[in-house]
Amino acid sequence: MAQKIKLSTIADALKVSTATVSLALRDSPLVADQTREKIKEHARAIGYIYNRRAASLRTSRSGIVGVVVHDIMNPFFAEILRAIEGELDRSGQTFILSNHYDQLDKQRTFIETVLQLGGDGVIMSPAIGTPAEDIRMAEDNGLPVVLIARSVKDANVPVFRGDDSYGISLATNHLISLGHTRIAMVGGTDQTSTGRDRYEGYLLAMQKAGLEVKPEWRIPGPRTKQAGFDAAPQFLALKDHPTAAVCWNDLAAIGMMNGIARAGLLPGVDISVTGYDDLEEAAIATPALTTVWNGQREVGQRAARALLDQLNGADTHARQELIKPELRIRQSTSKPKER
Amino acid sequence: MAQKIKLSTIADALKVSTATVSLALRDSPLVADQTREKIKEHARAIGYIYNRRAASLRTSRSGIVGVVVHDIMNPFFAEILRAIEGELDRSGQTFILSNHYDQLDKQRTFIETVLQLGGDGVIMSPAIGTPAEDIRMAEDNGLPVVLIARSVKDANVPVFRGDDSYGISLATNHLISLGHTRIAMVGGTDQTSTGRDRYEGYLLAMQKAGLEVKPEWRIPGPRTKQAGFDAAPQFLALKDHPTAAVCWNDLAAIGMMNGIARAGLLPGVDISVTGYDDLEEAAIATPALTTVWNGQREVGQRAARALLDQLNGADTHARQELIKPELRIRQSTSKPKER
Repeated sequence: MAQKIKLSTIADALKVSTATVSLALRDSPLVADQTREKIKEHARAIGYIYNRRAASLRTSRSGIVGVVVHDIMNPFFAEILRAIEGELDRSGQTFILSNHYDQLDKQRTFIETVLQLGGDGVIMSPAIGTPAEDIRMAEDNGLPVVLIARSVKDANVPVFRGDDSYGISLATNHLISLGHTRIAMVGGTDQTSTGRDRYEGYLLAMQKAGLEVKPEWRIPGPRTKQAGFDAAPQFLALKDHPTAAVCWNDLAAIGMMNGIARAGLLPGVDISVTGYDDLEEAAIATPALTTVWNGQREVGQRAARALLDQLNGADTHARQELIKPELRIRQSTSKPKER
Repeated sequence: MAQKIKLSTIADALKVSTATVSLALRDSPLVADQTREKIKEHARAIGYIYNRRAASLRTSRSGIVGVVVHDIMNPFFAEILRAIEGELDRSGQTFILSNHYDQLDKQRTFIETVLQLGGDGVIMSPAIGTPAEDIRMAEDNGLPVVLIARSVKDANVPVFRGDDSYGISLATNHLISLGHTRIAMVGGTDQTSTGRDRYEGYLLAMQKAGLEVKPEWRIPGPRTKQAGFDAAPQFLALKDHPTAAVCWNDLAAIGMMNGIARAGLLPGVDISVTGYDDLEEAAIATPALTTVWNGQREVGQRAARALLDQLNGADTHARQELIKPELRIRQSTSKPKER
C-alpha cells in the first residue's frame, strides 16, 4: 500500500475518533460542520489522500453488513439470505437488507447509505449492467464487496455462484435421455451472466446430442410464477409442439405447470417440465418438480464467511467460486408423449 | 412536555452537532470517548434527562426506518414490505429490514441497532409475547413505533391489520353456503392476536349456522406450504371425514392442496379448501384458490404513511385500523362430495 497516513494519524492529531474522521471525510451529516471542515483541512494539509482501504486499520467496526439483491421476496434470494443471516448472526453482525430491482441508482443509493452508516462490508447480487467502477467505488471507500449469484466483468472481488452452464446441461440431458427431442427453454435474460450461461448450457447440450434448436423454442423473460403461468399458452401454441420445457427457475416452472394444468393438460405426463434452484417448495409441488439443486445455502454461507474473513484481516483475493449443481429427479418429467 | 432542555442546547454549548450529542448520550462508538464524556458531563451538569422524544425537535433526520417482522421470506410479509418500501422510497427514506423469527431477543437487538443508528422510527409485526414495555422503551428513546399484522396488549401505538375474525367468517360462511357441514380449521396458533381472532371467527360462524365443531377438527400449527402439505394426511385421517378445510393462510392451503393431490384426491372437487391473504400466487394455483383478500398493500401503505406523518410532526394518536377483508371465490371450493 502506497497509503502511509492513517485515519488514526488525523484522529490523534485532532483528538477525535477515527470514526469521526472517516465520517467527516465522507461528508457525513453526522459530523458537525465545524469539525468536518477542521478534519478535511488537516487531511489536506498533511497530504492525506482519502482511501478507505486504510479503514481496514480501524480498530472498531460498526457490526453492520449491507446486503442488496434485486428482490428479497424471491425465494431463491430468500434462501441465500437466510444462510447469510445465519453466518452473520453467529459473528454478532447485523445485516441491513435492500432491493435494487435491477436499478443501478437504487443500488448506488444503498451502497452510499451503508457507507454513511460506517458499515463493514457489502454482499450483493449486482444489478443488471453494474459497472466495475461502482464496486471499485465502494472498495475505495473501505467497504469490502462480495458478489453472489452474478458476476461483474472486471470487478476484482470474490464471487459465489452456481455453475449455471453445467447445471442447465444436467436438466437438458435428463430430458434428452428420456427421449425428448423437441425441448424449449422458458425464461431468463441475456442481460445477466446467469442468463447467458444457462442459455448457452442448454444450446450446448442440445448440439452435443445432435438435436436441432429452433429460435422460437426460446421464450425469454419468465422468472416468476405469474410469468411462467402466462408463458404456458405461448409454449403450447409453438407449431412444432415441443414435448418438454427447460425452465429458467423453479418459480417459472411451477407457474408453467399450473398454466399447463389450466389448459387441461397434465404437467409431468403430457408435457415434461424442469426447474432450476430446488427451492423448498419444488419437492411439494404438484407434480413434484424435477429440478437442479443450485446450492443457495452454500452460496450464502461462503459469501458471508468470505466477507467475515476479510473483516478479520484475512488476505482474501478475488476469486470466482462456482458451486457444482446437482440434478433432482421427481415427477414433472417422463417419457415424451406426442400431442 | 416537561422536557425543556433540547439536544441543541448541549450541541450549541459544546460546538458539536446535535447528531453527535444524540449519539453520545446513547453511548455510540461513533463518537470519540473524550467527546462522549464531555457531552454526558455537560448534560448531567445542566440537568438534561435523556429522553429522545425531544429528538422530534431535531432538525435533521437520519432517513432510516427499521422494519422487523417474523420472516421477510414469507410472501404475506413480502407483499406488506413491498408496499412499505414504496411509501418510504417516495419520501427518500431508506429501510433496514430484519427477521425476529418470533424471538424477543432478536427483536430487541434489532430495535437497539436502529436506536444506535439514530433511526427515525420502527414498523414492526411484534414477536409472539412482545411486552408493551419493549415498545415503550423504543418510544421513550425517541423512536416512534407502528405495528402491523398483530397488536400488543396495552401498547399505545398505531396498529394496522386485517379484521381477522370477520375475514375467516367469510371463508367459513362460503363453505357453509355450499352445503358443507363438517369443516375443519387447519393452521394458526393461539399465541397471537391473529390466531385467536381467526379461530374465534371460524367458531362463531359455525355456531351461528347451528353446526357442531369437534375439537379434533382443529389442526393447529401450519403456516407454511411444507406444514400444510404435511398436515394433509392428518386431515384426511380425521374420523368424521370433514369435507372442507378453512386454512390459516394461502401458504398452508396451497401446501395442503398439494398434499391432497399427492394422496390421490382432487382438491376443489373431493375436498374444498380455502386460504387467507390472497397472495399473488393464489389465483394461479392449481386449482385456483378461493381465499380471503387481506389487504397486505393497504396495511403496508397505511403503516408507512402513519409513521411518516408522525415524523413530519403530525399529531398521531394510538389507534387500531382494521382493514376489511373480502372473499375471493375461485376453483378450490365446491359442493361437498361424500367420501
